[in-house]
Amino acid sequence: MVLCDIGNRYFHFYRHGRVWKERVGKIEQLDPLEQVYYISVNPNGTKKLLNQVASALNLAPYFRLDTQYRGLGIDRAAACLAVNDGLIVDAGSAITVDIMQSGMHLGGYILPGIATFLESYSSISPSLKSGINFAINFAALPQNTQDAISYGVLKSILLMIKDSSKAKSVYFTGGDGKFLSKFFESSIYDESLIFKGMMRVIEEGKRR
Amino acid sequence: MVLCDIGNRYFHFYRHGRVWKERVGKIEQLDPLEQVYYISVNPNGTKKLLNQVASALNLAPYFRLDTQYRGLGIDRAAACLAVNDGLIVDAGSAITVDIMQSGMHLGGYILPGIATFLESYSSISPSLKSGINFAINFAALPQNTQDAISYGVLKSILLMIKDSSKAKSVYFTGGDGKFLSKFFESSIYDESLIFKGMMRVIEEGKRR
Repeated sequence: MVLCDIGNRYFHFYRHGRVWKERVGKIEQLDPLEQVYYISVNPNGTKKLLNQVASALNLAPYFRLDTQYRGLGIDRAAACLAVNDGLIVDAGSAITVDIMQSGMHLGGYILPGIATFLESYSSISPSLKSGINFAINFAALPQNTQDAISYGVLKSILLMIKDSSKAKSVYFTGGDGKFLSKFFESSIYDESLIFKGMMRVIEEGKRR
Repeated sequence: MVLCDIGNRYFHFYRHGRVWKERVGKIEQLDPLEQVYYISVNPNGTKKLLNQVASALNLAPYFRLDTQYRGLGIDRAAACLAVNDGLIVDAGSAITVDIMQSGMHLGGYILPGIATFLESYSSISPSLKSGINFAINFAALPQNTQDAISYGVLKSILLMIKDSSKAKSVYFTGGDGKFLSKFFESSIYDESLIFKGMMRVIEEGKRR
């Protein structure tokens, strides 16, 4: 069994506890006899997966998440299904932040991902094209452009998560999740959070 | 006398207390006998101004701001020169935040402007293309994409400014400055802050 989470820029795969990703459009040869379950927020990526594995099964119709939110991305729903109580931060090309309480989704918000943030600066002016200083010292005021941008990007993301987390456990996933999790004492980094939600959907489906 | 602040997207003009802006590339006919003083962060815009008003004088070489910051935009320096003590927020295509204390610039940081933030979401996925809900209620968790994005953009900007302001007066300028200033009790919105700094440079130059 292979699980596949089709994002905006990457296919994320899971098989027997191993997680890997590939750029949308370039899929490693999958075993044609292996069952593939997928979710997707990217119709173009879905087509590419189905071209290669026509039997791949979309899990989305089987999702049951208790929420008032209209238009919740299926990847966000999957991560939420893996957590009963807590704040869920999926830090990829976008950073989605969702709150679960007693198995109910209370709502959430979206920030640009770190790389997307950086691209937005360079779209303003070539003089704001910069890499990020991941070792920025938040206790001192920035004294140059790279630090001014790094401080703006990272501190605004961290302040938002801190503001929402309060006494909750914070679950991080996604490419930048590991880095962001370091700033929170009682945080959990789990690269397979979305896949855990997908597995729950499969198991509950089998039980019915 | 006309003052001109050449930004990334707009020419900002000042004459006798009146402030107006024009898209870079489209300048209204300026009086050819009137002295124009300018600052610029946009070399292409500078060329366009000088094509029309060859006598326009660049004030940048006359700026004296006490700072350790390397590469501070001349528009930021101008706004800082207009404030002795306080936090200065210039909210345009970028949002720059600078701290002045006893006439000294202590440092600052840069966020994407509100419109730039929005563009960054649509660059991630067409499903994240959205306008902003300026009436978003920050006390409730968002329950749809537009609110999730509006909450992400506006609250992260407001948390950053709040985190930096502490007991300081907050001076807002720039296109989105008026809107943002409403969230801060002891704030000042001054659309001509940069021009006040430029006038200070002109006056101090005359005194020498």
